Amino acid sequence: ADADAMDRARARQAQLTKPAGALGDLEDLAVRLAGVLGSERPDPRGVAVIVAAGDHGVARAGVSAYPSEVTPAMVANFLADTPAGPGGAAVNALARTVGARVYVMDAGVNADLPEHPALVRAALRRGTHDLSVQPAMSLDEVQALILSGAALARRAIEDGADVLIPGEMGIGNTTPAAAITARLLGLDAAQVTGRGTGVDDARLAHKVTVIRMALDRTPTTDPLEVLAQFGGFEIAAMLGVMLQAAAMRRAVILDGFVEGSAALIGVTLAPHLRDSLFPAGQCAEIGHAAQLTHLGLKPMFHLNLRLGEGTGGVLAAPILLGAAATLREMRTFAEAGVPGSGSEE
Amino acid sequence: ADADAMDRARARQAQLTKPAGALGDLEDLAVRLAGVLGSERPDPRGVAVIVAAGDHGVARAGVSAYPSEVTPAMVANFLADTPAGPGGAAVNALARTVGARVYVMDAGVNADLPEHPALVRAALRRGTHDLSVQPAMSLDEVQALILSGAALARRAIEDGADVLIPGEMGIGNTTPAAAITARLLGLDAAQVTGRGTGVDDARLAHKVTVIRMALDRTPTTDPLEVLAQFGGFEIAAMLGVMLQAAAMRRAVILDGFVEGSAALIGVTLAPHLRDSLFPAGQCAEIGHAAQLTHLGLKPMFHLNLRLGEGTGGVLAAPILLGAAATLREMRTFAEAGVPGSGSEE
Repeated sequence: ADADAMDRARARQAQLTKPAGALGDLEDLAVRLAGVLGSERPDPRGVAVIVAAGDHGVARAGVSAYPSEVTPAMVANFLADTPAGPGGAAVNALARTVGARVYVMDAGVNADLPEHPALVRAALRRGTHDLSVQPAMSLDEVQALILSGAALARRAIEDGADVLIPGEMGIGNTTPAAAITARLLGLDAAQVTGRGTGVDDARLAHKVTVIRMALDRTPTTDPLEVLAQFGGFEIAAMLGVMLQAAAMRRAVILDGFVEGSAALIGVTLAPHLRDSLFPAGQCAEIGHAAQLTHLGLKPMFHLNLRLGEGTGGVLAAPILLGAAATLREMRTFAEAGVPGSGSEE
Repeated sequence: ADADAMDRARARQAQLTKPAGALGDLEDLAVRLAGVLGSERPDPRGVAVIVAAGDHGVARAGVSAYPSEVTPAMVANFLADTPAGPGGAAVNALARTVGARVYVMDAGVNADLPEHPALVRAALRRGTHDLSVQPAMSLDEVQALILSGAALARRAIEDGADVLIPGEMGIGNTTPAAAITARLLGLDAAQVTGRGTGVDDARLAHKVTVIRMALDRTPTTDPLEVLAQFGGFEIAAMLGVMLQAAAMRRAVILDGFVEGSAALIGVTLAPHLRDSLFPAGQCAEIGHAAQLTHLGLKPMFHLNLRLGEGTGGVLAAPILLGAAATLREMRTFAEAGVPGSGSEE
């Protein structure tokens, strides 16, 4: 981040027509965004959410309440023509509300997806291998999907986005996210494994067992190797989005637990990535809190979302844009002729 | 609220393309909004923030870190021409970000305010009496300001708002808010008195003493009498906004502690008002949590805002609009051809 811009932002913030600290967490968000965008009056243009979809071999092991067929059906839903506009999923409805553009990527869905001009095709295979018995992906596959995510991030930035939201769809993908989180944070599977789309107690216990099987296969802690062993195509693509956005000095709003697993890989590879990350909400998955603690970043809300798709990130965008607007557009005490605090002057 | 519309909203929500409950608190927000607007596909038009400003006789008792001169200066700031558009205060910057319209009312500021076409003049006097030694307002004054707030709410609704955000500016006004909250919730002044714009420990102790003096003057628990005894002109105006919005079946986003004190008066007068209230954030004032507990409503975020002006309400508007959009625009499983949950069907 641009430390000079952050210093200038703090100096400007101290002069704005409000009591010191009265905008609470917005003040830190605004200063961090000033650092990312390199301006004490940050003026982000558009917001883009990039929804990467992929399937998971481990879904056959019964770790989700939903069948893998939901993944391609939801990709079609992201792209569908509806009376309200393109896309009939939650992320589409929320994106329309806040004026965010939605990009959809097939990162490795287990189906023949219909041709659609708005679908970015990056699939190498129809889903990963079952991480409980073998590496989910090869390192070459991981690299290819990182590059595909990066390319789509560049396109979104060229299209006008300064705030990028990686999102995901993939039945079973809280299992790879939990495995990655457990390994990179040195935690037991049970500490980071939640109910995903809503499994019952018995299936939750089974999910923990499946994740332990994966973790027991290999002791690797190398971040790209961890991603290949335990991850998913859409997780690699989201990592590419994050790294590219950070490299081009754009902000990344970090949605839920699966996105968080990509971020953990990312900050292990490139610690400066953290500067560009703005967590949206604390999601309902239990491993998410551990991720945020490790990143040392505070979420903007606690709405108990657990849908994915980038939905939380989209909902958080106006908060981040609002923080920027206060720093950019508010007048100073001097400009407004407002008397300062009697106790502080 | 319209219980039939809420039932239809719940039935529709259960069919939408997401796991049950995966949108977390958004789901309850959407159903409640369906009840207010009377439609299972709530489609709120615009958002308006009504900033009422007033001064307080008690400010002379030294309960604030800022002098009363800040109130008229901030009113001028709300109305100022700036390069970004009208208004150089935080609420203006945030309202521009989310597309909310700002209305500014002089409810009783202690100054000659300059003529401005966008300033709504409703002042009867230049500030209240000092609540620690006498009633802040007469009942007639309270009634007049409620009507002025109601009239401005009607105008905002006629201008296109279906979501109204009462906001306030008034140096010293966390003192009347604390007195109202203490009396209506049966709490001691120390339990509901915070630092406002940022007083130090000594001034905080003095503020508690001042509030106790006020509470000791009269045992009244009649809501309008409590408002007259301890309140402020802008608090009465905000109450009028809330009651009118609820009567016209519009949603009210409830910002911070001072707004909350108006809401406590409101729900005591008219319990159904609660149905229309959507708390924005838990603010940093200690009495706010007690207000929300009494109202039985959960805030959307915890950003530690303590500025007032309706800023938190404006930031929360996209969350409420997003909740409405999911219920209104998402496709159902049947419409999208998405398989349901294997464990639930």
